[in-house]
Formats: sequence, structure tokens, C-alpha cells
Amino acid sequence: MKCGERSFIFDNSVYVRSGYTIVGDKEGKGNYGNYFDLVLSDDLWGQKSYERAECKMHKEAILGAMQKAGINESDIGLMLAGDLMNEIVGSGFAARDFACGFMGLYNACATYGEALLLGGMLISAGYEKYVTCSSSSHFSTAERQYRYPLELGTQRTPTSQWTVTGAGCTVLSAEFGEEGFPLVTAGTIGRVIDMGVEDEGNMGGAMAPAAADTIITHLRDTKRDASYYDLILTGDLGKYGKELLQYILADEGYDGINNLQDCGAIYFTEDQKTEQGGSGAGCANTLFNGYFLKKMLQGKYSKILLVPTGALLSRDTPLQKETIPSIAHAIAFEKK
Amino acid sequence: MKCGERSFIFDNSVYVRSGYTIVGDKEGKGNYGNYFDLVLSDDLWGQKSYERAECKMHKEAILGAMQKAGINESDIGLMLAGDLMNEIVGSGFAARDFACGFMGLYNACATYGEALLLGGMLISAGYEKYVTCSSSSHFSTAERQYRYPLELGTQRTPTSQWTVTGAGCTVLSAEFGEEGFPLVTAGTIGRVIDMGVEDEGNMGGAMAPAAADTIITHLRDTKRDASYYDLILTGDLGKYGKELLQYILADEGYDGINNLQDCGAIYFTEDQKTEQGGSGAGCANTLFNGYFLKKMLQGKYSKILLVPTGALLSRDTPLQKETIPSIAHAIAFEKK
Repeated sequence: MKCGERSFIFDNSVYVRSGYTIVGDKEGKGNYGNYFDLVLSDDLWGQKSYERAECKMHKEAILGAMQKAGINESDIGLMLAGDLMNEIVGSGFAARDFACGFMGLYNACATYGEALLLGGMLISAGYEKYVTCSSSSHFSTAERQYRYPLELGTQRTPTSQWTVTGAGCTVLSAEFGEEGFPLVTAGTIGRVIDMGVEDEGNMGGAMAPAAADTIITHLRDTKRDASYYDLILTGDLGKYGKELLQYILADEGYDGINNLQDCGAIYFTEDQKTEQGGSGAGCANTLFNGYFLKKMLQGKYSKILLVPTGALLSRDTPLQKETIPSIAHAIAFEKK
Repeated sequence: MKCGERSFIFDNSVYVRSGYTIVGDKEGKGNYGNYFDLVLSDDLWGQKSYERAECKMHKEAILGAMQKAGINESDIGLMLAGDLMNEIVGSGFAARDFACGFMGLYNACATYGEALLLGGMLISAGYEKYVTCSSSSHFSTAERQYRYPLELGTQRTPTSQWTVTGAGCTVLSAEFGEEGFPLVTAGTIGRVIDMGVEDEGNMGGAMAPAAADTIITHLRDTKRDASYYDLILTGDLGKYGKELLQYILADEGYDGINNLQDCGAIYFTEDQKTEQGGSGAGCANTLFNGYFLKKMLQGKYSKILLVPTGALLSRDTPLQKETIPSIAHAIAFEKK
């Protein structure tokens, strides 16, 4: 059922069947290190390049999620996937090993949200029985693609964030699986907002207005109060970006929202020196699947609105003096 | 209705409401130059960079398609778009100017097909009333991103193709518009196939097996004979790639298919020296929207199976000695 222009509440049940995560060594030493399914000690993972390592992580995350859901490769109808490498080669190359349909997605770090929305829509409408929703990022592939050679040891600006080395996958299904897992019940598709931020070292600042727009649209369209959710969890705004989001929300009349958290802001410990925190297409994905989904299973949360955020720039656009367009999608997870 | 593992026939009507195309000067001098809506004399289009020009083309193609469909920006619920620039910045930056939801897609030159499939699925299921399905490519952005600096004047290999400078958009709708337009009635989602082709100058060879797989799957799943369609139209295999496709089809027992054509193979004239023909995310899109859709309106064709093809490589993957994974999606257009 559509409500409002960009929101919908699913008519039919969309079950979360499993979530599986693989992260790098640094992520394993972060605040949620104990919750990931696999922590790599070497983020090359025996491969010849970081790009191949990310691709392997992406593929293994999908396989891990299938196994956890108790299903076979042949059960999956569609793989919805994306990553931050140019031409999303992490996903495209991982897809070689699966016989199901493939749809490559790109909404930067909001890609996992895009996959969940589309997966939920296609399952609720009866097109698919099982879909995989996956995304990945890798510090060493992103850093050398978007910024500088790793060997240069470039100094980081105070508003910068640290790209999470992580791949995660959620299996969604029309069929009920295990007691305790939430359902994907509703969503809001993000629109692209560009408030003129030029500094690619301040992506939290660029993305905060998009997050605010999507959260406000979701609450208005679904006629829900922010307190309907136990937690509103943005993707990778970082500490400063999260502050900015709260400021914008208050300015728009949504003050006093005290159940807001950001995956990027809480991902790493203070002494891991990531400045504003984590970011990347693997950030919200691995923290949701690794920690928050497990906490939903344990009963700590029963309703979470996940809002992955993305900055739609490339390496070249800031060099061409472009500002940074951003997007955020919202997905409601609820235990019934 | 799902039929087979990757195919479906739409339960509800998905109307093509309009198609709009903008191409470069060379494309305007090709075999179908008279059929495009706008032919640019200068493919910088008054912009400071080719990247900005492609972005402008992408945006104007969407606006043109809306106008042709007789609808306003506020009617559009969702923009499904992608292009070949890193991080699909042509689409992401174009989306800044639209207030609707945005989902960025990437399946290389098959992206237009991915957009049509998703658009059709979401409309048939009742999620959206109007969606735009758009894609673009630009010779000068693609050449310098994937290959060599334009100024170098590098020699081209005999199996190479010429990236089409073109942007196109199709408006799909749940609501009937004008008599004579076809409906999107069915589709088959592609899977990723990699037969080990290493030469990034032979993308037709890399993509032909994926096109064959999708065509065969579509015919098998829908229990249709190839002759059900007036035309089976692949995206950008080029002349050699099309030959290879026919060889593979014959080898799989589908010989004697004489209604096969490839957009890339026929896009340019012989003396335009494009070797195997056109390619790019704007190739199948502009030729379908520019020429074939008009010919459906005029009654020359009543059933076309469009099969956009994509090679999922990046600039870096061949340098890292990777082979080329490919994909093709199939979309059935039928006049009722």
C-alpha cells in the first residue's frame, strides 16, 4: 500500500531470514567487534589485491547469509547488490558465482537501503520468494579510488570518516523462518538533495539534509511519531553529521527525538582515531546485520527504522568543482 | 505472474507513455539520425566538461520524456536511472533536479533494461503510477574513463566498438495514455555469465553468451517461440558479437532465428569507422526510443523483445587480469 508520494507499507509479509557479516581487523577491534560473524585478521584475505579481497568478502557474505537462513543457492531468485568500487565490480564479479538473477544497484553508502526497499517490494508483490540484499566497502579499495594512494599516508581532516572494511547480506523472504526475526514492514524511497557542500571530506554534512528529509517524509507519510520506533538508525553521518541531522530535525519542528543513533558515529572506539567515525556501503549494513538484528532477536528492540545514507559523488566530481548530492532511504523493521 | 525462475508476465497493464532521446553529432549522422528527438551539434552542449554535458543530456532526456507523455514532474513517483560514469554521477547529479524518489542502477550497458524491468514490476504491482527509466553514455566521458586520454588518439582494435553519445528516457505508467503505444508485458532478469574473455576490446564476445542465456531462458520460461516476436533486439553486441550470439543460439538448438537484430551493429554507417558498431548505456536506449518505438507506433512492429546487454568491468579489472562478467535483461514490448 502506498502512503504519501515516496512511502509504502507492505501488504504482505516480508520476513528477514538471516543477516551475515564479514569485517576487517580494525572493525573487529571497534565497539561491536564481538557481534560480527567473521572478523578477518588480514584484510587482503589471501587475495592479490584489495579489490579481489572485497569481492571475496561480498560473495562470502551472501553465502554466509544463505547458510544461516537454511536455504540453498537455488532458492534465491534475485541478488540485489552494490558497492563503492567503480562500476560496482565487487558485486558484479561476486555475482558470477550465483545462478540467480542479478540487479546491480548504486546509491553510494545508501545502497544497502536501496536493496532492502526493492527486495521488500518485489517479495511483498509476489515476484520473488527469496532475495539477497548485500553491499560492501573496503577501506583500502575506497581510499585509493576516491582519495590518495595508500602509501602516501595523507593526513586526514577533522570532518573525515573512515571507510568500513565490511560486507553484509540480509536474506528477505515471503516465507516465515525462525521466531524472533523482524519483518520489513514499510519504507520510504529517498530523493536526491544537494545543499551545496563542496568538501568531500565532510560527507556527514552533505548527507544530513537528505537523512532529515527522508525521516520527516517517512513519519509524515506513515502518520507515525518518531517514538513509534525504538530506534531511528542512520547510516554513516558520523558524529558531526548526526549532530547536524538533529539540528535540522529540530529546525523543522521535530525536536526532542531522543531515539536517534548513527552507525558511523558509534562504529569505532575513540582511540581508533577515525575522526567522525565509520562510513561506506558496508557501514550501516554490517552494524545492522551484526549488532542490531541480533539485539532485535534478543528482544532489546522491536521496531527499528534504518536510514542508510549516501553521498553520490565520484573521485572526479569534486575536482570538477561540483557539490555533493546525497540520498537516504528508510526501511522499517518490526517484530510482530 | 512469475514463470520460471527469472521470468514474469505482468498481471496488470504497464503502458509505455513516451520515449525521448538526445544524441551527439556523430550519432545524428548515423543510420537513424532522423529519428532522434534532439541531435546536438556540439557534444559539450555548452558545458565545461563532457561529464557535465552527459549529466545535462540525462536530465533533459527525462524532462523531454515527461513533456511528451503530457505529465508534470510531480506526477513521477520514481526515477530509475544509471549510466557508465564512475558512481553513475550522470544520473545522480541529474536527480538533484527532480523531487521524486531516486534509485540508482548499474548493470553497465544493460542498465536501461534493468530500469524497464524494475519500473514495470513496480507499476504492475501498484507501487507507482509513473516511473522514468533512463540511461546515458557519452563517447568522451567513457573513452577517457575506461580507456585512454582523448588527446592521445589511440588506435582502435578491430573488435572494438564506439560508445554512443546519447541519453534516453521512457516513461512507464499504470495509466493508459495514447493509442498505438506498446505495453511492457513481460521480462526476464539476467544472470551474470563470464566465459573467460579477457580482452576489454572485445565486449561483444564477452556479452554474447549472456544475451544467449537470457533469450533462451525467456523463450523457455514464457513457452514462446522466437517467432512470437517480430524482432528480438539485443543491445550492443556489435556485428561480431551478434554473429557469435547466432552461433551460440544455433549450438543450443535455437537455429533459424531470423528476426534477430542488434542496436550496436546497425547504429552507425559503414564509413563512420566504428569497427563493430555502437555500444554504451545510451546505445539500445536511444535506438529503441528513437527508432523502434516510433516504428511500433506506426505499426511496423507489434511485438519486440528488447535485450540490453552489459559488460560488468571497470577500468581497473582488466589491468588486474580479470575476465569480463556480462549480463543481459529481456523486456517484452507488445501492442494490444
